[in-house]
Amino acid sequence: MSQSTTLASRAELFIEVTEFYARQMPLLEELEFDEFAATFTDDCVFGYDNAWQIDGREALQGGLRTNMARYGTSRVRHWFENRRIEPLEDGVIRVTATCLVSVTTEDGDVTFEPTCRVTDELIHTEQGLRTRSRKLRHDLPDVGRYFAKLAARYS
Amino acid sequence: MSQSTTLASRAELFIEVTEFYARQMPLLEELEFDEFAATFTDDCVFGYDNAWQIDGREALQGGLRTNMARYGTSRVRHWFENRRIEPLEDGVIRVTATCLVSVTTEDGDVTFEPTCRVTDELIHTEQGLRTRSRKLRHDLPDVGRYFAKLAARYS
Amino acid sequence: MSQSTTLASRAELFIEVTEFYARQMPLLEELEFDEFAATFTDDCVFGYDNAWQIDGREALQGGLRTNMARYGTSRVRHWFENRRIEPLEDGVIRVTATCLVSVTTEDGDVTFEPTCRVTDELIHTEQGLRTRSRKLRHDLPDVGRYFAKLAARYS
Repeated sequence: MSQSTTLASRAELFIEVTEFYARQMPLLEELEFDEFAATFTDDCVFGYDNAWQIDGREALQGGLRTNMARYGTSRVRHWFENRRIEPLEDGVIRVTATCLVSVTTEDGDVTFEPTCRVTDELIHTEQGLRTRSRKLRHDLPDVGRYFAKLAARYS
Repeated sequence: MSQSTTLASRAELFIEVTEFYARQMPLLEELEFDEFAATFTDDCVFGYDNAWQIDGREALQGGLRTNMARYGTSRVRHWFENRRIEPLEDGVIRVTATCLVSVTTEDGDVTFEPTCRVTDELIHTEQGLRTRSRKLRHDLPDVGRYFAKLAARYS
Repeated sequence: MSQSTTLASRAELFIEVTEFYARQMPLLEELEFDEFAATFTDDCVFGYDNAWQIDGREALQGGLRTNMARYGTSRVRHWFENRRIEPLEDGVIRVTATCLVSVTTEDGDVTFEPTCRVTDELIHTEQGLRTRSRKLRHDLPDVGRYFAKLAARYS
């Protein structure tokens, strides 16, 4: 396969993956939990390193509904950078990126959550790309302390 | 048309549209109002949902000049995500995205405006892509309240 | 060369350059100074307009180590927009972009540095793309005042 062909196929995979996230993430942001969960595989895993993990799409729907409820009337948005796309041997596509998360309150004030790294595994299905694994890690030396702070604030 | 060809043509449109915004938005940010307005069609519309709308490129130049004046010596920058590109049947390309807007003061302090959704309609002209419609909607339940706050601050 | 072919080659260059930054910038962010410096040419220049410039890869390693030390246990991340890629006649690829820099403290608080413009010159080498020049300019009318403030804070 020529260098040019390789680049062309990487370009196509880049577009396919970019389009996938551009459709997927607004579903979460706009609280379309069922539609968002439908972009994951039935046996997906979703979790934060050293904190918690959800197994399976059904649990994911409920977990996200609960997790996003703490934002109340604020709107969450995700801003990705450094997306790296690696096709693995078994058809899995590993995608890593950094992510900034903004929260806009109904008064128009904007705050940000700690930046994080995202490691996804995507697979091709008959319905297009689906996420089978999403692992998040905040850019914090002690993630447990952050989750404890969140729990104290929202409990 | 094969799946591969379709992806290739989507890749090319993706690049064309991405390059268009990469040239267009710095023109506004760097207060090149005439050059920015030239990236719109003569009969363009530009507006915020449920707030105000400007009709035509000439009015757009004046409107943006007035609107950007409130930033004074601060520099505004736009950060897009989730860009979705949809070719419509009549040659129009609909582009939707989310946008974060930063404001850097001359002291180096950075604040952010409420995040928003952008819905553009682009068309191909002999001069390349041009915006014929831009509709913005802040991520706020009550946009009128936000514009009233802005008006109070800058009047 | 047809319009289509031109777009295809621009798409491939876009992917190549995008992948380059997606690998390069996390190296700096995760304090892998040697690996980050290795993405520059041996005779590179790196500097801020009207402030300071580092000449050569070896000096770059030391300079960045010193510069990043001021962030302590915080994690710096870079968020690019408006990337424009221009192949020049001598094989140099000029890349300009705007950049937002976030700083996440170990407590999870997020602040931002003044936004800036980045102008890079990349060249193809046997090891792939390398940066031979990076010039930064903050979005500030008086950059000297900003650097003086930084110096006062961290000295």
